[in-house]
Amino acid sequence: MIVNMNPEATEEQIQHVIDRIKECGFQAHVIRGAERTVIGAVGNSGRRGELEGLQVAPGVAALVPISQPFKLVGRELRSERTVVDVGGVKIGGPNWVVIAGPCSVESRAQLMEAARGVQAAGAHLLRGGAYKPRTSPYDFQGLGIEALEFLREAREETGLPIVTEVMGTEDVTLVSEYADMLQVGARNMQNFPLLRRLAKTDRPVLLKRGPSATVKEWLLAAEYLLSGGNANVVLCERGIKTFESELRNTLDLAAIALAKELSHLPVLADPSHGTGRRSVIPAMSRAAIAAGADGLMIEVHPCPERALSDGAQSLDVTAFARLMQDMERPMATRAGVLV
Amino acid sequence: MIVNMNPEATEEQIQHVIDRIKECGFQAHVIRGAERTVIGAVGNSGRRGELEGLQVAPGVAALVPISQPFKLVGRELRSERTVVDVGGVKIGGPNWVVIAGPCSVESRAQLMEAARGVQAAGAHLLRGGAYKPRTSPYDFQGLGIEALEFLREAREETGLPIVTEVMGTEDVTLVSEYADMLQVGARNMQNFPLLRRLAKTDRPVLLKRGPSATVKEWLLAAEYLLSGGNANVVLCERGIKTFESELRNTLDLAAIALAKELSHLPVLADPSHGTGRRSVIPAMSRAAIAAGADGLMIEVHPCPERALSDGAQSLDVTAFARLMQDMERPMATRAGVLV
Amino acid sequence: MIVNMNPEATEEQIQHVIDRIKECGFQAHVIRGAERTVIGAVGNSGRRGELEGLQVAPGVAALVPISQPFKLVGRELRSERTVVDVGGVKIGGPNWVVIAGPCSVESRAQLMEAARGVQAAGAHLLRGGAYKPRTSPYDFQGLGIEALEFLREAREETGLPIVTEVMGTEDVTLVSEYADMLQVGARNMQNFPLLRRLAKTDRPVLLKRGPSATVKEWLLAAEYLLSGGNANVVLCERGIKTFESELRNTLDLAAIALAKELSHLPVLADPSHGTGRRSVIPAMSRAAIAAGADGLMIEVHPCPERALSDGAQSLDVTAFARLMQDMERPMATRAGVLV
Amino acid sequence: MIVNMNPEATEEQIQHVIDRIKECGFQAHVIRGAERTVIGAVGNSGRRGELEGLQVAPGVAALVPISQPFKLVGRELRSERTVVDVGGVKIGGPNWVVIAGPCSVESRAQLMEAARGVQAAGAHLLRGGAYKPRTSPYDFQGLGIEALEFLREAREETGLPIVTEVMGTEDVTLVSEYADMLQVGARNMQNFPLLRRLAKTDRPVLLKRGPSATVKEWLLAAEYLLSGGNANVVLCERGIKTFESELRNTLDLAAIALAKELSHLPVLADPSHGTGRRSVIPAMSRAAIAAGADGLMIEVHPCPERALSDGAQSLDVTAFARLMQDMERPMATRAGVLV
Repeated sequence: MIVNMNPEATEEQIQHVIDRIKECGFQAHVIRGAERTVIGAVGNSGRRGELEGLQVAPGVAALVPISQPFKLVGRELRSERTVVDVGGVKIGGPNWVVIAGPCSVESRAQLMEAARGVQAAGAHLLRGGAYKPRTSPYDFQGLGIEALEFLREAREETGLPIVTEVMGTEDVTLVSEYADMLQVGARNMQNFPLLRRLAKTDRPVLLKRGPSATVKEWLLAAEYLLSGGNANVVLCERGIKTFESELRNTLDLAAIALAKELSHLPVLADPSHGTGRRSVIPAMSRAAIAAGADGLMIEVHPCPERALSDGAQSLDVTAFARLMQDMERPMATRAGVLV
Repeated sequence: MIVNMNPEATEEQIQHVIDRIKECGFQAHVIRGAERTVIGAVGNSGRRGELEGLQVAPGVAALVPISQPFKLVGRELRSERTVVDVGGVKIGGPNWVVIAGPCSVESRAQLMEAARGVQAAGAHLLRGGAYKPRTSPYDFQGLGIEALEFLREAREETGLPIVTEVMGTEDVTLVSEYADMLQVGARNMQNFPLLRRLAKTDRPVLLKRGPSATVKEWLLAAEYLLSGGNANVVLCERGIKTFESELRNTLDLAAIALAKELSHLPVLADPSHGTGRRSVIPAMSRAAIAAGADGLMIEVHPCPERALSDGAQSLDVTAFARLMQDMERPMATRAGVLV
Repeated sequence: MIVNMNPEATEEQIQHVIDRIKECGFQAHVIRGAERTVIGAVGNSGRRGELEGLQVAPGVAALVPISQPFKLVGRELRSERTVVDVGGVKIGGPNWVVIAGPCSVESRAQLMEAARGVQAAGAHLLRGGAYKPRTSPYDFQGLGIEALEFLREAREETGLPIVTEVMGTEDVTLVSEYADMLQVGARNMQNFPLLRRLAKTDRPVLLKRGPSATVKEWLLAAEYLLSGGNANVVLCERGIKTFESELRNTLDLAAIALAKELSHLPVLADPSHGTGRRSVIPAMSRAAIAAGADGLMIEVHPCPERALSDGAQSLDVTAFARLMQDMERPMATRAGVLV
Repeated sequence: MIVNMNPEATEEQIQHVIDRIKECGFQAHVIRGAERTVIGAVGNSGRRGELEGLQVAPGVAALVPISQPFKLVGRELRSERTVVDVGGVKIGGPNWVVIAGPCSVESRAQLMEAARGVQAAGAHLLRGGAYKPRTSPYDFQGLGIEALEFLREAREETGLPIVTEVMGTEDVTLVSEYADMLQVGARNMQNFPLLRRLAKTDRPVLLKRGPSATVKEWLLAAEYLLSGGNANVVLCERGIKTFESELRNTLDLAAIALAKELSHLPVLADPSHGTGRRSVIPAMSRAAIAAGADGLMIEVHPCPERALSDGAQSLDVTAFARLMQDMERPMATRAGVLV
């Protein structure tokens, strides 16, 4: 931590900061500049949290953090990349993976048709919401346990492991009986009781980035899981909120490249929520993989027009199969035609 | 709902939309324009949610919602303003109120000193965090039940009703034994299981706006509470995330004016979180009241420099007392000096 | 400038940074911490711009600027507040001022009616666009020199000094013949040739904040004017672009408080563009003054419904007169009714 | 245009809207719903701009635009894609192109070394700034005409056509003598006098997206060029401003896919400005092409550490050559390793 003093800070104020740094268990290192003084707090056994209050000590202009705030998710302590095994499918290894299926499980027939379709097209895992976080209380809220039963049946028939969202601590035990991977939705990224509870489960966790979370905040949310005991964490970028109103969110692919640079955890992309617009999903799927994503999460519905949620961003089974074929196509060479 | 067709939409596609509107229980009303056709779905007994899928029907350019998505929080069904009684203090009435106290309860002594100070300065309610949502798992997470005991004691001594945050459904019963008002933190604004649980309690709820929530999403979160049975809801604007990095958040005072135009619920402002900078809190407190806020939530710590959380945005007791006096001062007249 | 080295930086890399700091004319001051080394560049006669490249020197994690980037607009070199005289009206003094008038000058009759109306209601300066920046080339682009003639006539009749926008360097001479104050529109805030040209004029400049400009970028744009020779600069906050779509922009009143803390220049607020919604303009006008604004800029049109631009955010003359009276009313006392 | 009336609108108010629609040259088509009335303005020969004022007519809740606001840049009037020829290099055709070179031209030696390097690596066009828009007046502002002379010399030696920025109308004639393509910088995207002037030149224009411009605003800026007579326009996405602070901007690749869906113009990506971070430029270059970009604009400096501007985001010649080779590599197959 660097403490940046005001140009007009007095000797007494400078000394106070030095004293306080020592009180918190650090050494103080002073640089007297032409215009102002800065003071470094040096050491790794001090009480860092207590230093933050110095921001309002007299004569202090600003505090400048020097170390990264996360530890276990970072690459300094762990150089090899994490590979998460979800029911036999490896996420973060040499091959990218695709999680596909409907936004919500709406009926047995709907789910089975989607499951068969995405399996035939080459998806590796099946998604489907049983408990749905919905902006309005008047929207369809999910079938709950009935949906979980359908998901189990779909896994039995197709062999695809199941990814589904868990919305609160009270559902973790139940959903874990059915799901191979537990999803934390974007609006729950900083639901800390839920993260603490999931840290104690043996199920892998898919942690979506919050719509207003910085990459650092996202990694710190993952740090709750790792520091609590669950190392099987996969990150998923799903778009952030910006002023652009033509698309539902702004899919931040550079955040994927950055998260992979800062962390050893695998990172997926969700171009369905990330754009909200069916027509651009194929382009963004290809782009996400090119940006370094370890895989994709894509919404597929047998009949998007009749979906009870997120129809506008769902592919039908045929479009999804075309996308999967398209992904295998060699990318642009300099003479190649693109998209 | 208005369905806006593409200019090149065929008769068959138009007819399909008409049929689907009728299937969902609405009447279809067609306007054939010079360039394109638009189709209105008319009626109030149809299944609105199912209409949304039309966004991906062939030939459809876009859907345009016409009605507001919220009902009980809106002013169409209730013209008088809601006044929420919190332990005898009325929020939303003719007088504005101030909730003050430390970000976190750190010790008995710290809380009591803060409580006595804010009471003497004229605060109406006491805040203090027992369970703290923190970005990093390595930061101070709150004293939990011990803090709740201290809060009870502070109420007994000062008479100030208590406002404290509840982070998950599992804590609602316990925290309700101690608190007069339950706060939903900004990052939990769309924690729907928590909202559903709080809808069933008899305690008033303070619902903070999420850092990336639109005013409509905020009102829809409140709609979860009202439609679930709890009408004692107070909204609180606490800043949104924007590109401006000099301040912690962007305090959106126009959102207060807008929320009061669209809803009958009281609205507070939290200039402490909303700016993160002690020096601008007095100006923004006055501005929030001028914008129509029903009151303020302000962080006060006996010694901000030693606070375990949010010291940079906390006032000390003296500065808070000065702010309270300042608020009583007549505002700018045309010849008056400001700030 | 502080250079933060990677934890694994080598001695050679550290030495390279030290050498480079010296080459640029600064002294290097090294702090060796438990985890990493940081190096301060100290001095005020070095070539600061050249230091920035160190960000990509081997072993460097990040550069941390320590000094504020602006000089003449800041308060370190000038402690008293600037007061700008515009045709006899003082902006930044003890009294706040109101600039009012139509978005665009549409006709002689429309302007004269607006001018008489705002004068009668107590406005201090008259605004009116002769050259209009419009998002679409098919929208009304302003009457140009004809509008300038009408503005001159309005000044002659009402005595109100004129504020009008200048869109490019080629118009500065002409517009200066008519206007008492030259406005730089939000989208031109970083039109540097225009700023350099206006630095050479003797007219006061009203510099609107860009919709994606930080407060620091805004102050640096003003620094172009001051460092080029024009000290008569008034800042104007007019809303920034955020995800909130219900209002046209997010009026950032804390930016006004912050700008006044960092700079000695006067700061106005434009609640018309800042919200785009007529119903919230009175509340935001009062809030802006309470936040410390030195005045307001408000769009007033004799018949907003027939305005050729920005009708939705324009007040009619009656509503403006009511707002002006309302501004004189004493603000909230603790027992007072607000709004 | 659809006019959405308030639920409590009176018959008189409805009739007023109908009358006004007719006055503006449209037909009015009324839909009376269960809760409210909506009125369509139908026709393509009316004065659309005048309709906008209806937003503030009594009883009106909101106006809903139905048609896209742009014409010539859209695909409705022109189905084939535009290919822009810049000194013999075709942008928008089957092959993607790369514009590379230094942010600023700093010296003859620096430019020539960069030019030879990027040519050898396979770049198609050479960039280099002669006039630089800089946030601070104290930063390097470019060499001006001297830089233009060096650029001409570099073209003569390497054969690469030149792309350089023009900052104001007064420079258009001069810069056009040297450059093959004129760049409009992001902060000038809505500098309308400049756009109008460039519409009259015979040089192709590279139009960067503004940091807070929606895709529609970007296309409307291009519409200024096309409607003014210059059809040789190439768009360039270079990142938007968001709350994410770890990267300089948020590169919005979905905007590229969307712009290509809405418009026939070619679209490039600038991952250098779009991220500001050298380490993620290769990943984002590949991702941009995968998203459908027609090419890239990349900053290359012989010695980024000593660059006078944007060193942190510049590749050196070796890294650029590696990127170019990397781009030719087949993309991920399902069994392929990525990044």
